[in-house]
Amino acid sequence: MLNRKLFKIEKENSYTRQAALIREYKASHPDADIVSLGIGDVSFPVPAPVAEAMKKACEDLTSMDSFCGYGAYFGIPSLREAIAENDYMGLGISPDEICVGDGTKTDCTAFLELFEGDAKVLTGNPTYPVYRNGSYAMGREVYECAMDGECKMTVPEERYDVVYICSPCNPVGNAYTRDELSAWIEYANKNASLIIFDNVYKDFQQSTNAPKSIYELEGSRSCCIEMRSFSKNASLSGVRCSYYVFPKELGEEMRSLWRERTINRFNGASYVAQKGAEASYLPEAREIIKKNISVYMENAKLLRETLLEAGFMVTGGTDAPYLWVQTPDRKECWEAFGFFLEKLNIVTVPGAIFGSEGKYRLRISALGSRKDCLEACGRIKGYYEKSR
Amino acid sequence: MLNRKLFKIEKENSYTRQAALIREYKASHPDADIVSLGIGDVSFPVPAPVAEAMKKACEDLTSMDSFCGYGAYFGIPSLREAIAENDYMGLGISPDEICVGDGTKTDCTAFLELFEGDAKVLTGNPTYPVYRNGSYAMGREVYECAMDGECKMTVPEERYDVVYICSPCNPVGNAYTRDELSAWIEYANKNASLIIFDNVYKDFQQSTNAPKSIYELEGSRSCCIEMRSFSKNASLSGVRCSYYVFPKELGEEMRSLWRERTINRFNGASYVAQKGAEASYLPEAREIIKKNISVYMENAKLLRETLLEAGFMVTGGTDAPYLWVQTPDRKECWEAFGFFLEKLNIVTVPGAIFGSEGKYRLRISALGSRKDCLEACGRIKGYYEKSR
Repeated sequence: MLNRKLFKIEKENSYTRQAALIREYKASHPDADIVSLGIGDVSFPVPAPVAEAMKKACEDLTSMDSFCGYGAYFGIPSLREAIAENDYMGLGISPDEICVGDGTKTDCTAFLELFEGDAKVLTGNPTYPVYRNGSYAMGREVYECAMDGECKMTVPEERYDVVYICSPCNPVGNAYTRDELSAWIEYANKNASLIIFDNVYKDFQQSTNAPKSIYELEGSRSCCIEMRSFSKNASLSGVRCSYYVFPKELGEEMRSLWRERTINRFNGASYVAQKGAEASYLPEAREIIKKNISVYMENAKLLRETLLEAGFMVTGGTDAPYLWVQTPDRKECWEAFGFFLEKLNIVTVPGAIFGSEGKYRLRISALGSRKDCLEACGRIKGYYEKSR
Repeated sequence: MLNRKLFKIEKENSYTRQAALIREYKASHPDADIVSLGIGDVSFPVPAPVAEAMKKACEDLTSMDSFCGYGAYFGIPSLREAIAENDYMGLGISPDEICVGDGTKTDCTAFLELFEGDAKVLTGNPTYPVYRNGSYAMGREVYECAMDGECKMTVPEERYDVVYICSPCNPVGNAYTRDELSAWIEYANKNASLIIFDNVYKDFQQSTNAPKSIYELEGSRSCCIEMRSFSKNASLSGVRCSYYVFPKELGEEMRSLWRERTINRFNGASYVAQKGAEASYLPEAREIIKKNISVYMENAKLLRETLLEAGFMVTGGTDAPYLWVQTPDRKECWEAFGFFLEKLNIVTVPGAIFGSEGKYRLRISALGSRKDCLEACGRIKGYYEKSR
């Protein structure tokens, strides 16, 4: 019997449909100068010191003495140590609580393998679609959380086994405050729920009332797995490397089951990717990454100002490189997507891909180049000035 | 509620226990000259032309123009074409039926996401432990097939949703014949079962009555997914690249569900790994791979002859680089493992790791270096000649 939950993945609200519409438009308008504000992928290439380390790793693999086959299931020790030292200084996370993965997309729903098939999963609406659709792929039932005015999940009365929180948030572009997250931690500890805390945009966060890591907050170690990625900072989106923290306080039973699960379902991230990720902590790489991120967040600021000036309602763009934008004239999002594509030759993402609450929203990404950002801002400004 | 099936993964019969025993022995015998016939990993390094292509890929990633972020979910087109041309010449498998993965270990149980939680999974006994334990991780019930005298699975009366067949076989080292596989294909088509055909040792196969691909056999396209890997031939075990064939005849519904599942659970194999895999089809790489495999299979022959001469009962070593060896004096496998480790300083794998039918078996690997193989043969010969 085929997994009935897979049929719940909506095709009418999917990236597949969006990509097809873009393809169609390009085919019928081969000369259109299309600018993409759609993609959630970086535009800066891999920093040279990171690529150098990867090339060195490739070279290591050619010699009998330095060849490295099946690796450590949870990551090479030097990378786990670099993560602990650089990202968890003073937070008391030890390298053996840090697990290296090959991408947060794969990691985030894998944790559901810890739970029975009837586990109840809570996500936001809007939400990163993988929490919902990935949970369906795992045969789990997904529930949608009530949201506040800033599109943040509000703590429910009912118990859920697993809660996905993305902060800084894709698609909304804002971050949960310390107080908001502390309320979730209290809820999770009271209900023995597991919070999967997706923190892949941590380097983009500018709000000072949001924690830099969930483990700054009391009680988090007994209920939270924090996930991060090298995709958005070190531009390793095509190379595949991520990590997550599985704290000792989740309990020896759960840790031991996770160990067995992982040994039997995973063979470690690519050695080459791990050596690249490790090099991303070198000061010369950090400097490049910092500069790249400041360009993205400056893009976000420019886009935000342009859209506000043009009369749009905009959320986010402050803590993650995304803006959550109300469609013009109450257009339904696919119509608004088509409007931007055809009138302005700008690609956006229809908000409904992130959930029904995105029906009248577009997600606009600031991860493109500065040049594309300025071009898009110019077109938006030009169009809305003219139409006033 | 924690996934009850995870508790079924046996710790007393695991690689974790084996590794701990080896560590303990090494700690208490720091001068012991230990030779490993345990590991299922290659000992030859990555062929130079493959590593060169990977270095080039790393370099590509540093430039805005050639940077490659999130890739194609099912693999880069040039690799899929190279696989179709080289591995499926004349078998009518098109590139869009070929999907690139990041390792057969991850791929093989992922297919269970196509099925409901109550899907019935059939494996061998002995079997590659991941089919069993990975299925438990996915919350599925696993059944063991009756085996024939050559440790091959015999076609059952009952229906199962998914059947894992490994040929050439880990841990037994032999291969299923055309007739045997045709009987399974008939069974699968009659019962609407899916056969996951694990063919990662295809380059090691020497039996001429076994097919080179399952798709040589009639009826296979409507019931078989064939999986292969670049770990054992191109030594990419630490780099992570694999592929599988999802034939059109599995039906549009299943293909479409698999597409949705994969888009939401996977982001493509590492670009660097894929470029390496692609280069493994270059004639200069093929030559190195062929030579390496001939060394491994010559190792297998030497080990087989030595063990037979010493009076052991041996299966396999003919189509995969493994020998399935009866323990001496009806010793239970963990005792025999200890005996080899302590008396001969040779590492083996206790057969019970592969299932209860391995209780009186050891798996011996021929994937080590020729030097280690000769050393091990010398020790076995010396011990058993003396003890006659």
